[in-house]
Amino acid sequence: MIRQQLIDNIRRKQSFLCVGLDTDLRKIPQHLLREDDPIFAFNKAIIDATAPYCVAYKPNLAFYECFGLKGWQAFEKTVRYLKTHYPDQFIIADAKRGDIGNTSAMYARCFFEELDIDALTVAPYMGEDSVTPFLQYSGKWVILLALTSNKGSHDFQLTADQQGERLFEKVLRTSQQWADEEQMMYVVGATQGKLFEDIRKIVPNHFLLVPGVGAQGGSLEEVCRYGMTPDCGLLVNSSRGIIYADSTEQFAEVAAAKARELQQQMASLLNP
Amino acid sequence: MIRQQLIDNIRRKQSFLCVGLDTDLRKIPQHLLREDDPIFAFNKAIIDATAPYCVAYKPNLAFYECFGLKGWQAFEKTVRYLKTHYPDQFIIADAKRGDIGNTSAMYARCFFEELDIDALTVAPYMGEDSVTPFLQYSGKWVILLALTSNKGSHDFQLTADQQGERLFEKVLRTSQQWADEEQMMYVVGATQGKLFEDIRKIVPNHFLLVPGVGAQGGSLEEVCRYGMTPDCGLLVNSSRGIIYADSTEQFAEVAAAKARELQQQMASLLNP
Repeated sequence: MIRQQLIDNIRRKQSFLCVGLDTDLRKIPQHLLREDDPIFAFNKAIIDATAPYCVAYKPNLAFYECFGLKGWQAFEKTVRYLKTHYPDQFIIADAKRGDIGNTSAMYARCFFEELDIDALTVAPYMGEDSVTPFLQYSGKWVILLALTSNKGSHDFQLTADQQGERLFEKVLRTSQQWADEEQMMYVVGATQGKLFEDIRKIVPNHFLLVPGVGAQGGSLEEVCRYGMTPDCGLLVNSSRGIIYADSTEQFAEVAAAKARELQQQMASLLNP
Repeated sequence: MIRQQLIDNIRRKQSFLCVGLDTDLRKIPQHLLREDDPIFAFNKAIIDATAPYCVAYKPNLAFYECFGLKGWQAFEKTVRYLKTHYPDQFIIADAKRGDIGNTSAMYARCFFEELDIDALTVAPYMGEDSVTPFLQYSGKWVILLALTSNKGSHDFQLTADQQGERLFEKVLRTSQQWADEEQMMYVVGATQGKLFEDIRKIVPNHFLLVPGVGAQGGSLEEVCRYGMTPDCGLLVNSSRGIIYADSTEQFAEVAAAKARELQQQMASLLNP
């Protein structure tokens, strides 16, 4: 999906919500365990219920890989279901991949060619040649980790170099030589508050994928105050706060209500 | 596998060779494509031929994921084959994972519980809580990226902070607070030459997993001169140089000869 289409979807639906499909067999409603493929059954119900209120879905690969073959099958079925029934949804594989060039090229082939996913999260530690193989597909996106939402983000990402530039800033600045705002986004955690101001100085127009609202404690208002651009420029992800809001047979309706609640907050933030 | 057993295996086999199973359907001998599971058939032949000369195998997950369900199946079969027939081989899943805590915990469960693999490569960018979930399994290892073998390693890993400490050094130093040499190793590319001396100042006893000998141009002698410890302290990986040395029906014999050649060099380097 190209940037303009994403922006159009956000305007039309008055939402920049991304629903994280971190589907864990130990957390989904018990009655689904009787299904042939409980992970897919859960995802399908969540997608059908929340699709009116969001513009993107983000399955995190860890949750699928951990169930081996069955997990991969559920992941592929989920992607195909989205492509078939909700072609206007932006699909992000949250995989945090990144390896030497020929290996990154294999990952790119898997996610962009075989599965036709829109975007992949990528870790920057290994530098340019670990990222550029993902940029060979037009209309496909790299979402590079910049400043993550977790406590450990302080261990290395905030370290300043001898010119006073912090690692996440160096990642933002350096990676702009690899691709522009039509193919690159950045992960910035909602828990990072005012640091969004510093980030917008370096990437004024890029989309940011923002996890950490909800279960991890980030504030949607704060993210928008410091991070929103005229094109919106944000995809805000919520996983646990939506998909595990209820564990009864009404889980999908409750998820829809939670997604709608966020969408309505987003609509007011889009039209201040 | 615990550290002492790995050291014993290295002494007994006079080898610190790790064979990288970067199995690519487009590169394996054509006659194998007639098999039910060509990836596994290739791996099995390579393993049977090279096992006398190495102490570890390292499948890189990218090469399996890229074939979806069939790829995962081949990966799982390869791991089970090694566990059953070669239980003294150290198995490394080269996955370069790392995510927020609850997600890293899912990856750990997948690789250490479900698959009973010995070690997983992990990317350090997200810091402590992205790494520590992998350290909850006794006898299981994190192999943290420190200084990789690729050109892009220069983009961020060599950046010095205001005290003059480079990022890879900070990763080495900081991560020692998370686990000791019984559970942590580091990836250091063979192409990094004399930087091994700087690395050994910070981690004098840890094992290093060293890719980049062969196709990537690193020198085994140089790695040993600057990186070897009294316990050896090295696992040197070769992938393409062994497994794709020949593409005829004799591929396994040629792979064995290449592995044996490296093993013999290693034997002299172990007994100078």
